Amino acid sequence: MSEKKIKITVKPIGKKIFLESPTNGLKAILGSGIGIKTECGGMGVCGKCRIIILDSKDIPVSEREKKVLSSDEIKKGVRLACQQIFNRDLTIYIPPSSLIDEQKLQVEGEEFYIKADPVCRKYYLDLKKATLEDMKADFDRVSEYVKNKYTKDVRDIDFKALNQMPLAIRENSWKVTATLRENQPGSEIVLIEGGDKTKNSYGIAIDLGTTKIAIFLVGLITGNTVDSMGIMNPQIKFGEDIMSRLSFATQNDSSLKEIHDSVIESINEAIEKLCNRNGISQNEVIDMSVVANTAMHHLFLGLPVRQLAISPFLSLTGKAINLKAREIGIDISPGAYIYMIPPIAGFVGSDHLAMILATRLYEQEGNCIGIDIGTNTEIALKTDKGIVSVSTASGPAFEGAHIKYGMRAAPGAIERVTIDPKTHIPDIKTIGDRKPIGICGSGILDSVAELLKAGIIDKKGKFIADNNCLVKDSDGNSEYILWPQLPGPEVKDRYEDRHVSINQKDIVEIQLAKGAIRTGIEIILEHSGISFDEIDKIIIAGAFGSYIYPKSVINIGMFPKVSLDRIFQVGNAAGVGSRMVLISKEERKIAEDIASKIKYLEITLHPNFSDYFAVSTFLPGTSELI
Amino acid sequence: MSEKKIKITVKPIGKKIFLESPTNGLKAILGSGIGIKTECGGMGVCGKCRIIILDSKDIPVSEREKKVLSSDEIKKGVRLACQQIFNRDLTIYIPPSSLIDEQKLQVEGEEFYIKADPVCRKYYLDLKKATLEDMKADFDRVSEYVKNKYTKDVRDIDFKALNQMPLAIRENSWKVTATLRENQPGSEIVLIEGGDKTKNSYGIAIDLGTTKIAIFLVGLITGNTVDSMGIMNPQIKFGEDIMSRLSFATQNDSSLKEIHDSVIESINEAIEKLCNRNGISQNEVIDMSVVANTAMHHLFLGLPVRQLAISPFLSLTGKAINLKAREIGIDISPGAYIYMIPPIAGFVGSDHLAMILATRLYEQEGNCIGIDIGTNTEIALKTDKGIVSVSTASGPAFEGAHIKYGMRAAPGAIERVTIDPKTHIPDIKTIGDRKPIGICGSGILDSVAELLKAGIIDKKGKFIADNNCLVKDSDGNSEYILWPQLPGPEVKDRYEDRHVSINQKDIVEIQLAKGAIRTGIEIILEHSGISFDEIDKIIIAGAFGSYIYPKSVINIGMFPKVSLDRIFQVGNAAGVGSRMVLISKEERKIAEDIASKIKYLEITLHPNFSDYFAVSTFLPGTSELI
Repeated sequence: MSEKKIKITVKPIGKKIFLESPTNGLKAILGSGIGIKTECGGMGVCGKCRIIILDSKDIPVSEREKKVLSSDEIKKGVRLACQQIFNRDLTIYIPPSSLIDEQKLQVEGEEFYIKADPVCRKYYLDLKKATLEDMKADFDRVSEYVKNKYTKDVRDIDFKALNQMPLAIRENSWKVTATLRENQPGSEIVLIEGGDKTKNSYGIAIDLGTTKIAIFLVGLITGNTVDSMGIMNPQIKFGEDIMSRLSFATQNDSSLKEIHDSVIESINEAIEKLCNRNGISQNEVIDMSVVANTAMHHLFLGLPVRQLAISPFLSLTGKAINLKAREIGIDISPGAYIYMIPPIAGFVGSDHLAMILATRLYEQEGNCIGIDIGTNTEIALKTDKGIVSVSTASGPAFEGAHIKYGMRAAPGAIERVTIDPKTHIPDIKTIGDRKPIGICGSGILDSVAELLKAGIIDKKGKFIADNNCLVKDSDGNSEYILWPQLPGPEVKDRYEDRHVSINQKDIVEIQLAKGAIRTGIEIILEHSGISFDEIDKIIIAGAFGSYIYPKSVINIGMFPKVSLDRIFQVGNAAGVGSRMVLISKEERKIAEDIASKIKYLEITLHPNFSDYFAVSTFLPGTSELI
Repeated sequence: MSEKKIKITVKPIGKKIFLESPTNGLKAILGSGIGIKTECGGMGVCGKCRIIILDSKDIPVSEREKKVLSSDEIKKGVRLACQQIFNRDLTIYIPPSSLIDEQKLQVEGEEFYIKADPVCRKYYLDLKKATLEDMKADFDRVSEYVKNKYTKDVRDIDFKALNQMPLAIRENSWKVTATLRENQPGSEIVLIEGGDKTKNSYGIAIDLGTTKIAIFLVGLITGNTVDSMGIMNPQIKFGEDIMSRLSFATQNDSSLKEIHDSVIESINEAIEKLCNRNGISQNEVIDMSVVANTAMHHLFLGLPVRQLAISPFLSLTGKAINLKAREIGIDISPGAYIYMIPPIAGFVGSDHLAMILATRLYEQEGNCIGIDIGTNTEIALKTDKGIVSVSTASGPAFEGAHIKYGMRAAPGAIERVTIDPKTHIPDIKTIGDRKPIGICGSGILDSVAELLKAGIIDKKGKFIADNNCLVKDSDGNSEYILWPQLPGPEVKDRYEDRHVSINQKDIVEIQLAKGAIRTGIEIILEHSGISFDEIDKIIIAGAFGSYIYPKSVINIGMFPKVSLDRIFQVGNAAGVGSRMVLISKEERKIAEDIASKIKYLEITLHPNFSDYFAVSTFLPGTSELI
């Protein structure tokens, strides 16, 4: 049986997909290179892959779609891509809210000033040419020169560098540049180049997040960031959250390889771009540092993750990694290493350690909290007894998941909300000042805080029933409209003109998320025997943490009431930490030292965990608002 | 134009070769997997690839063949394979003397007794299972156990071992065996296996020679050799001697890869065989040691060799190599290292160092010479001032090359000769007591010594013209018959029944070879300011050295006259040295220490080198014979 070719036209991208045979809709769209969202990996439950089928009547509706889509949507031809079988010519429309959009990627953190003292340094050697009277072996000649001229002990040479050595020496009149990596008890030569290349010393620092990857090209002599780039983590196609990626990776060996390869490939591409646009050869990238949460750490290295996915959720290592980049296929200088500071625990990654390092949390005066809010929120408390860290499962609500109109912090997302306490009319601001297509984490957080303040919801988060600012959706549930649907032509042709609202379920999601974080704070404080009043400083790190409005954070009760001048938003501190260890031996030592001393506290083991959590989901009373 | 298939029948193997198109004869035969000799790489000058073309008349003779073959041979259809173009069906006969035969491979050296104290050791770990109350990372759990139970500091873990770790732990109820490799400043875990595998500790020691490779499977706990194997170095197909291999390897990158791959493949096959026949998994081979001359050392590692092939003939390194076996494709335990003691110079390899180590030359009382006779003969002189080593280009005559009837020490080779001083009739002994087909090094050496003693040649090596025991060959040159051609049917059908003789040119080759060695001895003695009479001991190492008759060595004047009880033949000392460093940390230290102190002396730089050499080619006078 020969299969007919099927033509799918995708609007508004205007792209045609040709299929050889009936194919699952999500697969077909993804296969054509269009980034479509999914949080459930195509199970038909997340509702993120909504499409509209335009040129067909009586499109069948699956049971799953009936659960996810409103009857209104079903009538309008809205379906889930993952539930479709494309077996005929078709025109479909993919609304922007279903597309994986270029995100607002914050790669920069606060400025930092530390002395560049990198592990890898270049030395220029003007060697004496070998003769029959002076028959020293190349490596011995190089080592002795380095010892005499620069008082550095060379203990070893990378195998690739050994390979390069004789030609580099002889094609450049015995003048070469040796790159030394300081190891204990002696240095290793990791690169030999012809001529004087001492000025061409670069490194790559990476903050490898679940959603985004921040990549910095750094000059190792100055310590300055030459250029940087934010890219999406391509592993998103295997699942948006950590657990679904771990679950994909543990299917079999080839799935682990696939998910590992995808991130390596993207990082290689980014490094190549960064090098090209700065006129730098990848061979001149002689060192690299990567910080990540523990799952991303393992998947980056291609390490098994089953033990990380099941209780007690163990990291494979709590030590720093020093690995030849070539072992995992990273294309930088052939003999170069990748250095990774230690993960702290299964759910407290090396990005948390990088944050502690970059914020100097460990040397802050008094008591200080460092917090990085995300799907897992890591909290570190520094007291005079040391540092205790916890991880709390705050869920993906702050990233827009499980929120009806939730989306990531991409253009068109409502990021700031205020509600007039008298008129109950909202005032919104979107990213890029575009027409609203959804709401991102900081907007949701603002919304709940403002709804509470305006008396539209109560302490339990419930809509106060008789409030006249609420409307009913097609299923009869109350919602608060942030952005109304505008009148105009047939909705099919302008699906993006939907309304954006927040409903009861959304508010509960936020209560659960902030409750998880508050629980973590309460337990870490109790464990350390101090009260919140004794906290001198709260440092909020991370991309999300830098968008949120601290006042709203307090007004939803994520933190107890605290003077705003004690709150510091520092941006991508993990990326700063990654750059710090890249350019400084001393910072590596400090980071490893912190890692060996930090105490990880498993909050779910606390006898009153459930009680704390129940109480923490409540919103603050009027007296606690600021 | 479509090519006709040509059929070549090879006798006595009875194999047919099918060719697609006209092909060079040597290439065709080699391509069919038949090991045929060549020392000149097919240049038509060595004469080793003699074949007889049986079913054809008027076979053309090239100018080169006329120089190499006797007119008698040409008449009988003898030709050089390398000079033939096979462009028609043909039957050819390859005489055994042209075949690369299974050689007499000596793998064992003298017994040695050192304490096994290997760098790699296995430790059994009965780990406490991780729980939510005890969430230590796997690597940290393993490291702490090793530290507490065995007081070993683990500093690092091999990336492959890290990969194996979680499954090995969880599939074996948290009971595993960790293999530690002691590095400075801490140990590295190179292998994690499930259960108690502490008894399964093996290593491979290799003496990698230009012609043969001796491979030892060694138990690392006992230090005992479990099994051993001698194989031919497959690189022979790229040239029999070092220089032709280096010249092949420097043609381009792919030729270096090809010659490197060939030896790796053969060694892998041998390791697999050794493991299989002893019921050992290759995963249990956790360490490996290789000693070799510097060219074989580099080609084994796939390192560039151009600098080794041209003056001043430099080794790339004079330091020990510690390299992951996987980096060069050696199939042993995935995280295992290969350890290689340092080469001393371009022409004094790590096999020489291994010999010095194994013979304990460095701690012998008084003055002692250690010598390994080969194409390059390395001589080490130990005095109370330390060790000086030289290399001297003795050429391949002792291996049968450049000798008319010369052959390697294979079955049928004349290895022992005495000549009745009265009748001038020879008494011979062949290897394997087979019918003689040629003469190997020890036989040639004996022959020259006996010819001198019997007065058939004079001090200058010249046949004494009127000696009635000499015959003329078809070209009118004198030769001394060691084995006569037997009468019988047409010689074509029994080419192996040729006579074996020694001629004037053969004697000159031996004089040059022994002269080179004697020159090395004279210069090394002069350099050290001692006379030969002050030498307390001469240790002759190596395969060839163990076959030769010490009396003949003295009677041709390779050494000055010396009491035979000062001469010790120790066999394959390099192989012993390789095993010693495999099983002992201490021996590695000693070897590296010797390497750093040994003085290499370039004898060709000696102002009187030529004079020494001229005098050294003379044979001893009657008073110097024993």
